[in-house]
Amino acid sequence: MYVILVYDMGQKRVGKMLKLCRKYMNWIQNSVFEGEMTDVQLNELLYEARRIMKDDEDSLILFKNRDKKWLDKQIVGKERQSTDDFL
Amino acid sequence: MYVILVYDMGQKRVGKMLKLCRKYMNWIQNSVFEGEMTDVQLNELLYEARRIMKDDEDSLILFKNRDKKWLDKQIVGKERQSTDDFL
Repeated sequence: MYVILVYDMGQKRVGKMLKLCRKYMNWIQNSVFEGEMTDVQLNELLYEARRIMKDDEDSLILFKNRDKKWLDKQIVGKERQSTDDFL
Repeated sequence: MYVILVYDMGQKRVGKMLKLCRKYMNWIQNSVFEGEMTDVQLNELLYEARRIMKDDEDSLILFKNRDKKWLDKQIVGKERQSTDDFL
């Protein structure tokens, strides 16, 4: 499945979350990641994320899609990080 | 079509972009919006966004999907803004 992940974390925890998400996904913008993942990988990431997060302060939102082809991505302005050369 | 929009703007332009995106979409997290839009609405938003943005500094990414039902949204931790009561 193809996943878009966005997080809004307390400043003290951002570094850990960035490091975790980079293990599984491609950084595309400030606090925004995308990538192809299996259910197992996603469950691992969420397990680790919950250990980092403070539930009453931090927020993480996932948009899951069965296949990247259903998602039409458009970039306006400066591209922070191209994922094309990885695919 | 259902659209997820994320932006990363220079501090001086964030306020204007926030105001613009709120006209068309639902704010769900810091610099992240989602919502059902027509092609006309999206083109209007992009036209205005390009007038606000500095192309060599600011970044806006859109993920468009033909139908919201193909997107499985999951929220972990604190929900910043519920869109459910609007739909």
